[in-house]
Amino acid sequence: METRRTFIQKGLLGISAATVVGTSATQAFSGSYVSAVAADGFALGIAGYSFVHFDIDQSLAMMKRMNVNFLCIKDFHLPLASTEAQISAFHEKLAASGVTGYAVGPLYMTKSKAEIDNAFDYAKRVGVKLIIGIPNKEDLAYISEKTAEYDIRYAIHNHGPEDKLYPNATSIFELVKDLDPRMGLCFDMGHNMRDGQDPARDMKRYHKRIFDIHFKNVTAATKDGTTCELGRGVIDIPAFIKTLRKVGYNGKCSLEFEKDMKDPLAGLAESVGYFRGVSDASA
Amino acid sequence: METRRTFIQKGLLGISAATVVGTSATQAFSGSYVSAVAADGFALGIAGYSFVHFDIDQSLAMMKRMNVNFLCIKDFHLPLASTEAQISAFHEKLAASGVTGYAVGPLYMTKSKAEIDNAFDYAKRVGVKLIIGIPNKEDLAYISEKTAEYDIRYAIHNHGPEDKLYPNATSIFELVKDLDPRMGLCFDMGHNMRDGQDPARDMKRYHKRIFDIHFKNVTAATKDGTTCELGRGVIDIPAFIKTLRKVGYNGKCSLEFEKDMKDPLAGLAESVGYFRGVSDASA
Repeated sequence: METRRTFIQKGLLGISAATVVGTSATQAFSGSYVSAVAADGFALGIAGYSFVHFDIDQSLAMMKRMNVNFLCIKDFHLPLASTEAQISAFHEKLAASGVTGYAVGPLYMTKSKAEIDNAFDYAKRVGVKLIIGIPNKEDLAYISEKTAEYDIRYAIHNHGPEDKLYPNATSIFELVKDLDPRMGLCFDMGHNMRDGQDPARDMKRYHKRIFDIHFKNVTAATKDGTTCELGRGVIDIPAFIKTLRKVGYNGKCSLEFEKDMKDPLAGLAESVGYFRGVSDASA
Repeated sequence: METRRTFIQKGLLGISAATVVGTSATQAFSGSYVSAVAADGFALGIAGYSFVHFDIDQSLAMMKRMNVNFLCIKDFHLPLASTEAQISAFHEKLAASGVTGYAVGPLYMTKSKAEIDNAFDYAKRVGVKLIIGIPNKEDLAYISEKTAEYDIRYAIHNHGPEDKLYPNATSIFELVKDLDPRMGLCFDMGHNMRDGQDPARDMKRYHKRIFDIHFKNVTAATKDGTTCELGRGVIDIPAFIKTLRKVGYNGKCSLEFEKDMKDPLAGLAESVGYFRGVSDASA
């Protein structure tokens, strides 16, 4: 367990995980890893939900093709009931494609406190220090205690105007600002925009509590807006990335591409290219 | 014929071709056309050779997916022997996908002068004002006369260190600089780099004679370099695009992607995204 956690922590710190995985995996991993971080300025990742119609092998093949090295793990790829051996095999599979699973979620935990306990237990066993979650508001104090107990951060995901609980970043920030500093946001910039809230402004306001970003663009700043390729929507991505630099954001930027979900590679690849182009040109 | 030429010329000038094509095609065409030019700053295109393993329908489907609106027409998509009706149908097919065929080539014409005559006749019938060609050096004076006679520009393509005729931009510039001003280069920045020649420097030097660009990146500045996704090679693309702005380049930037040629969409899409990201971030 300690080895696994060390592995992941080193990943998060940007240090090669060369010591923990097999030789050929190591070469693939450390090679792509370093170049990706260096080239992006920011660590580009993929939110697992982008691959909802694909198993982990298909997903990793796409990530390898795009040279993207961080995955936010969804439970359809690594179920909560996974054994230690299954978790270990999963990480090794990722490493063989040069990928680090850096967080789990989004996980819904609105039915019972047991779901919260399960999520923290799962994150600990997976060896990540970040959970993306959708909890009930009345459980936030309980979750805040858990983040301290496990030393695992908890990022609440905002889901746009239809979301009665967390429509935007502000709604989450107001709820977590006085809780444990490990309580924060997975900032879905697309859903924030769909709720009519400016992503760059909110990044500036809430960056100390933003632990992860679902990086995307949307076709309109209303509930009718849908995900589109990163360079084709209403969010000014160059301005947003400038803001990330300004506030010193050091989390991941994980693309969540909810268009063409049964054939997402072209749109994801275009988005990856756009992100890197903006990042390189404004470095 | 006049209608067809007017159509293409308007395309080159960046004016909507709404008047010449059918209603549904028109909507697709003018819509994407305007947004692409506005978003890119430069007109992004695809060099037909990128689609060597695909027919025109498959190629256009990929272009539509990437929202790219200019195609340099290769003869495997529109043979030199095409009839007026076939050419017309081809243009209508392109327009239905929002695409303008802005030039023809590269066309080899090293075997006989008849190939040169055929190429100019073909370009005239296709209605484009630009031929990308690979001619013999001893025919350049003859071609220069043809460019004046047809008022069609002729851009010679450089093909790297293996190319005994035109390894780099300098080799072409020296040959055309005193010929008709319609004689120039299709600047293959990747092959120029493979020949150890700096693309941005040569863009600055020769921009008045650069009529088209095979836009790409390569893995090494030697003959062993191969095409790679735009953001992953040794050419500093942000610096190159800055140079394009500085010299006021107003030709097309046509991606020629010679990697994964049997499955090019992901790499092309990443390159399209990178181009637009750099362009948007540095606008």
